[in-house]
Amino acid sequence: MKQYVFGIDVGGTSIKCGLFKADGTVIEKWEITTRTDEQGSHILRDVADGILTALTEFNIKKEEVIGIGIGVPGPVKADGTVLVAVNLGWGFKDIIGELKEYTGLDVKAGNDANVAALGEMWQGGGQGFDDMIMVTLGTGVGCGVIVNGRIVIGAHGAAGEIGHARVNLQEQEQCNCGNRGCLEQQASATGIVKLAKEELASSTKESLLRDNEISAKIIFDAYKVQDEVAITIVKRFGAVLGNALAICSTVVDPGVIVIGGGVSKAGSVLIDVLKEYFDRDAFPACREADIVLAQLGNDAGIYGAAKLIIDEQK
Amino acid sequence: MKQYVFGIDVGGTSIKCGLFKADGTVIEKWEITTRTDEQGSHILRDVADGILTALTEFNIKKEEVIGIGIGVPGPVKADGTVLVAVNLGWGFKDIIGELKEYTGLDVKAGNDANVAALGEMWQGGGQGFDDMIMVTLGTGVGCGVIVNGRIVIGAHGAAGEIGHARVNLQEQEQCNCGNRGCLEQQASATGIVKLAKEELASSTKESLLRDNEISAKIIFDAYKVQDEVAITIVKRFGAVLGNALAICSTVVDPGVIVIGGGVSKAGSVLIDVLKEYFDRDAFPACREADIVLAQLGNDAGIYGAAKLIIDEQK
Repeated sequence: MKQYVFGIDVGGTSIKCGLFKADGTVIEKWEITTRTDEQGSHILRDVADGILTALTEFNIKKEEVIGIGIGVPGPVKADGTVLVAVNLGWGFKDIIGELKEYTGLDVKAGNDANVAALGEMWQGGGQGFDDMIMVTLGTGVGCGVIVNGRIVIGAHGAAGEIGHARVNLQEQEQCNCGNRGCLEQQASATGIVKLAKEELASSTKESLLRDNEISAKIIFDAYKVQDEVAITIVKRFGAVLGNALAICSTVVDPGVIVIGGGVSKAGSVLIDVLKEYFDRDAFPACREADIVLAQLGNDAGIYGAAKLIIDEQK
Repeated sequence: MKQYVFGIDVGGTSIKCGLFKADGTVIEKWEITTRTDEQGSHILRDVADGILTALTEFNIKKEEVIGIGIGVPGPVKADGTVLVAVNLGWGFKDIIGELKEYTGLDVKAGNDANVAALGEMWQGGGQGFDDMIMVTLGTGVGCGVIVNGRIVIGAHGAAGEIGHARVNLQEQEQCNCGNRGCLEQQASATGIVKLAKEELASSTKESLLRDNEISAKIIFDAYKVQDEVAITIVKRFGAVLGNALAICSTVVDPGVIVIGGGVSKAGSVLIDVLKEYFDRDAFPACREADIVLAQLGNDAGIYGAAKLIIDEQK
């Protein structure tokens, strides 16, 4: 009986790998270095070697394996090909074809942010839901959208790019995407620091944030001890992100919105402020959505990758 | 061989019905009055009578019929039940169960705006695409979202409620939904008239729009003859709707955006102004989306309803 599955999450510096049972039980996790030299040509071979070693170690036959799910940092087309993944040194890559050739196992590939969302739905903060938006608040704003239990890819692989929703037409600085006023310019770890600098410059109010290096963590720590300037900053952040999530909810009407990434370490205070502004701006029926913290941290990718191939076999 | 299908579009005043071949060829169309008296209890029986009559008239056996698709004005759950459809006088209604009982045919039900979107994808402006947003600019802003060829319903039946995306936090007037600043307060047939009144009141500029009753049609007609005030109004309208569509595109990344409803009778000038602001604000990959006019007019619902039951049988 097919009961084992591999979940692989390829990052720019390391590759996380997991061997699971089909019910989500972890059997083994390991990590390997991402060799981006020679146009990243070793990456899939290294992944395959690890998988074959695990099969031997745990005495698992290939006939017992459902397959390999793999998430990569770049837009992955429905056929499992990638046109370019800059962080890996890849140009065009037939992920499914190569990994199948190296392992003799079935393969399914997806974008890493989308795959992480699927992981959180399967075994993390989104359990029990079929319709979900996951937002990852890190250097940028990543996002994966799930409808009816399946990742939404989009016509150009850009579904879930809500970090580049143009929410602020007054913004002067350019975003990495070339536009001005993208959500992630205000609502990421970098964005909240930008808001903080603006807020500190606009007044002379005393604050724990003055004379300190500022980070998302420092801002939320000051917010937790009622620092007035930090309160203003966090409320601005919550208003921008809560409004954007309310607007996005009118498109797919998620049952749950899962918040992950570095900024989410602020914990329940972050959820509270998001919920306040989301509730203010959301369409009544969409307001029913739960807003929760992600639970799987850096493992969301391997869980989601495993689920990707499990769903494929259904 | 099953080769015939019925598409039914239930509105508050009339019910449009179509008998199609599975390839989309229309065999017959007819319309009946919506009897909303007695809690709309005659509606599904009237629909069934029409269907049974058509079967006799065209000498079609039930074994040759794929089934009946039906769109209704209200949120329809995945199991084909409706909790309430005010325009029909309905409280809870098991559409599938009732219509199946009356006809002996398979039934699939959906929300009318969503079903119309499916129709435009199948036989109208969205042909050839799998991922689509359809926007209907009428009294309000209706919308249907299609991902991977299937209607997105959402966790609370509210997917596609982009008319209630809260895009203007400065708005003072209340929307029907209870919020303030919804997209449809600016970007519907009613919304553009509101924008026009604001614009006319804010200056004394000469305009064809003064001393006239104002409607979306009159505004676009004035725009076409270069009326300066009308140009300002249409550009404001285009900027609001183009920005909203750009933001919504980051969620599901449609291949095509189809524009229907009364306002769309303005034709290509409407598409041009929307495209201008959509291109300005959209994420680069999402900018590839086509923006086109709807083609099926009031028939979109019957086409989409037919497709709904065809897809169900796959």
